Amino acid sequence: MDAMNSVATEPDEPQLAEPHLRAVLASAGLDVEYVRAEGNTLHMRGEDGREIPVVDFAGGYGSLLLGHNHPVITAYAKQLLDAATPVHAQFSLHPEANRLAVALNRIVRRELGDDEPYLAIFANSGAEANEAAVKHAELDRVLRLEAQLEKVGKSFEAAGYAVRGGKATVPDTTWEGAGLTAPRPQDPTEALGVLVDALTRRNAEQAARPPVFLAPEGSFHGKLVGSVQLTHNEAYRAPFKSLAAQARFVPVNRPGAVQRVIDEERASLLGLTVTGGRVEIRRHEAPVICAFILEPIQGEGGIQELTREFAEEIQSACAAIDCPVVVDEIQSGMGRTGTFLASSDIGLRGDYYTLAKSLGGGLVKTSVLLVRESRYRGQFELIHSSTFAKDGFSSLVALKVLDLVEADGGAVYREAGERGARLKDMLHAVHKDYPEVVKDVRGKGLMLGIEFHDQSDAPAPPVQEAARAGLFGYLLAGHLLRGHRIRTFPTASAANTLRFEPSVLLTDAEIQQLDTGLRDICDIVRGNYGRPLSLPAPPA
Amino acid sequence: MDAMNSVATEPDEPQLAEPHLRAVLASAGLDVEYVRAEGNTLHMRGEDGREIPVVDFAGGYGSLLLGHNHPVITAYAKQLLDAATPVHAQFSLHPEANRLAVALNRIVRRELGDDEPYLAIFANSGAEANEAAVKHAELDRVLRLEAQLEKVGKSFEAAGYAVRGGKATVPDTTWEGAGLTAPRPQDPTEALGVLVDALTRRNAEQAARPPVFLAPEGSFHGKLVGSVQLTHNEAYRAPFKSLAAQARFVPVNRPGAVQRVIDEERASLLGLTVTGGRVEIRRHEAPVICAFILEPIQGEGGIQELTREFAEEIQSACAAIDCPVVVDEIQSGMGRTGTFLASSDIGLRGDYYTLAKSLGGGLVKTSVLLVRESRYRGQFELIHSSTFAKDGFSSLVALKVLDLVEADGGAVYREAGERGARLKDMLHAVHKDYPEVVKDVRGKGLMLGIEFHDQSDAPAPPVQEAARAGLFGYLLAGHLLRGHRIRTFPTASAANTLRFEPSVLLTDAEIQQLDTGLRDICDIVRGNYGRPLSLPAPPA
Repeated sequence: MDAMNSVATEPDEPQLAEPHLRAVLASAGLDVEYVRAEGNTLHMRGEDGREIPVVDFAGGYGSLLLGHNHPVITAYAKQLLDAATPVHAQFSLHPEANRLAVALNRIVRRELGDDEPYLAIFANSGAEANEAAVKHAELDRVLRLEAQLEKVGKSFEAAGYAVRGGKATVPDTTWEGAGLTAPRPQDPTEALGVLVDALTRRNAEQAARPPVFLAPEGSFHGKLVGSVQLTHNEAYRAPFKSLAAQARFVPVNRPGAVQRVIDEERASLLGLTVTGGRVEIRRHEAPVICAFILEPIQGEGGIQELTREFAEEIQSACAAIDCPVVVDEIQSGMGRTGTFLASSDIGLRGDYYTLAKSLGGGLVKTSVLLVRESRYRGQFELIHSSTFAKDGFSSLVALKVLDLVEADGGAVYREAGERGARLKDMLHAVHKDYPEVVKDVRGKGLMLGIEFHDQSDAPAPPVQEAARAGLFGYLLAGHLLRGHRIRTFPTASAANTLRFEPSVLLTDAEIQQLDTGLRDICDIVRGNYGRPLSLPAPPA
Repeated sequence: MDAMNSVATEPDEPQLAEPHLRAVLASAGLDVEYVRAEGNTLHMRGEDGREIPVVDFAGGYGSLLLGHNHPVITAYAKQLLDAATPVHAQFSLHPEANRLAVALNRIVRRELGDDEPYLAIFANSGAEANEAAVKHAELDRVLRLEAQLEKVGKSFEAAGYAVRGGKATVPDTTWEGAGLTAPRPQDPTEALGVLVDALTRRNAEQAARPPVFLAPEGSFHGKLVGSVQLTHNEAYRAPFKSLAAQARFVPVNRPGAVQRVIDEERASLLGLTVTGGRVEIRRHEAPVICAFILEPIQGEGGIQELTREFAEEIQSACAAIDCPVVVDEIQSGMGRTGTFLASSDIGLRGDYYTLAKSLGGGLVKTSVLLVRESRYRGQFELIHSSTFAKDGFSSLVALKVLDLVEADGGAVYREAGERGARLKDMLHAVHKDYPEVVKDVRGKGLMLGIEFHDQSDAPAPPVQEAARAGLFGYLLAGHLLRGHRIRTFPTASAANTLRFEPSVLLTDAEIQQLDTGLRDICDIVRGNYGRPLSLPAPPA
């Protein structure tokens, strides 16, 4: 091909795609290039061009439950390409997307032991699915608010009929209950008029309050304009807080915390009711709290599991105010923790679910928002869409992924549970042997984390410096990569925790390799050896 | 494979993926399934299972400049799959993403005749690229605001030194200029203290104002939480207005409108300066207007071209207040209008560009935000990212797309221009022959639209009814599909305009086929024939 300008690499190529990030990678020795990927292995480019295999415990932040370039998925993708499958056929029937929705329903409803269908809205990334959840919840909130205002308006009318018909009066308790301090007019109709005006003004103020989202501290739900405000990490969120509705963050697993925050944020509309000849005030919930969004196991937040008790509190407190619970299973779902939904294992039943990452089988970009039928707003379909979403190619690949996950009576779920248990046993053993270095081991299935004690006062200067800069976890990751050919990262919002999210293909030998690497790190940190944690060096 | 539950279609399969949308499609006869796609043709499934070829003038809303399943792209994708190319290798070097950024720079800078580099932030969809633009602009705004506040604070300090040193006093004009009505204290230091307190309070109020985005009326920039507020169509935007920062919409191509809106929205911070022994107020721009975002040719808004004069007004008015111009080339870019950027043809130079759709070659989901180096904030890289973005697979496919677009000395640009001119000639001829049916023909290259006169008072009941329901364009699309095997849609926010965005493979015969279809529609609407516009019927 005779291109106007060649697009091949040149030796003096400028750095135009995130050069600052590149510098950060380099400072931790993570500036390597991966050239081939299969199963649990990413091959990095060595100095002489040779491939160096690296065991991938980062696993695409949870996208690779089935590993890199799974042969069945790759072969199927090629088959779809050969068949000239339509990718862009917007605004037509999409039976493959519907089949995917049906398959997801079958699995989710089996796991929840529940018959209620979930309707599916497709998107392209996890963050996009969460944005769709936010939008759907807000549409629902606005419609519920309108319905409440209408109900209250009707209650004013009914009170008017009763008072004008001489069947009811406005008692002092009602007058004062509305916060009115002026003397009550003698004429009941006149008194009611003043009362209704006061309540209407108050209700309008309450109805105009901006929506509030609730989420546990440590939450991560993406980095788009709406979703970043549901992400607890201040570094990601604070610069953009003027752009979107705010969240209140609830302490994780703290009994009573959910109800306390709800009580602080909730609002009411005041209507009227006529009882025994008396016009009385009746309080209606004003939907100000738009949704409670959570990850059953927080990924970026340090592999933090929500307890069953906390889940129950969220579920019942939200049900009491008719607030939808959005369960973000983008990282934890698809079988990674031994069940299709990590949340089903703590007894949670979501009104909404979001799935992405492993849904794409490590190849395609697809995500889905599932909304329980009884909370679903059909008109959402007419005002929300995306050119790239719901395409045949991605939907068919995702269907193939579900096939693989469900195959052989759910072997993938069992493997995730069994491999995860084996990996966790090793982490526990390391913890036991190095209690002064390792603080905690957390997680479930193939979503595990090991937290290190803070090293801000470590004797070794490079460790201390890295810890004080919040980069200790990256130093560990660099050492594991350079010294042990293991790829892992700290969780972004809890930088002393390394996370492990390998595929179900994880072997005992790979667990052993990580064991060796972690013990080496622990030895160095404990100071048994004079040598420092690896500093950046080119791959050998 | 022994799946726990088969995911194959069943005859009684429930509709769980947007059933309401399906009903809307059915009402216009657009409820067809496409089973194969090649070049300019989508094949729909006929009743007997036969494939029925349909000429695709919808073109994935602009994603298919090179057509469906382009053989070079398909072959290359298969080659990448065979090579086990890494898809998920986050937080490592991404030389292929950098090569893509460099290639985009080479093309964009050649076209702009400018040497300043553009830095690239990758995303997954057009909407995501626009969200990144919004976030980047807000980060930049917040940092500029902080810098302005610091500068103002320093000016207060400098005035303090001068006054305390007896070198300056606060004159009446300054006192009154700050809106102070109380008598000015005799002591100059005391007067300055009151003055600085008043200005500090006022500046804090101005600094706390929420950011405002400007966009032309008719704009479409996506449907995520942030981007939907930049989308003019009320149906898409209004239900979600409490979720995100608001935009002011400027009448398109109206002289003076941009400056008028800027003058209404802009704000200032008041600092001090000492001149000739007098402390005087000095006005500094407070960056409240975060960005001006526009499409050079509006897609959803009815194929509306921005004039060179309007572009000049935007450019100069924004430059005067240091507000970045974001040029959304998601639909118009990549060569569709005869140049790589449609905006370069009207003399516009963006501070930011967003590209998506055809960048993915009709196969992958990728998008990019380009930011001019002098406006780029490096720290953005450390707080914005996406698991799916910047992957090797998508970046390499996009590089191949650029190869194809630039091949043979830019043949694709020339073809887009030539084919588009031929198509537009036909549309003009139809307009000329049916002036009472066709109102206007607009657009450039392969981004064209034909606007029909409002038919709300048409004599034929089905036409009148559809027009009054805002569905006239969909009725036309249904007729063209069922009667003429042509796929097109009205633009979503200007439903009397049909849009045509075919690939560069468009043949004279396909133009002829559309010509026949449009003349048939025009004849029916004009009432030459007794037969109605097609009502929904299954494909024959």
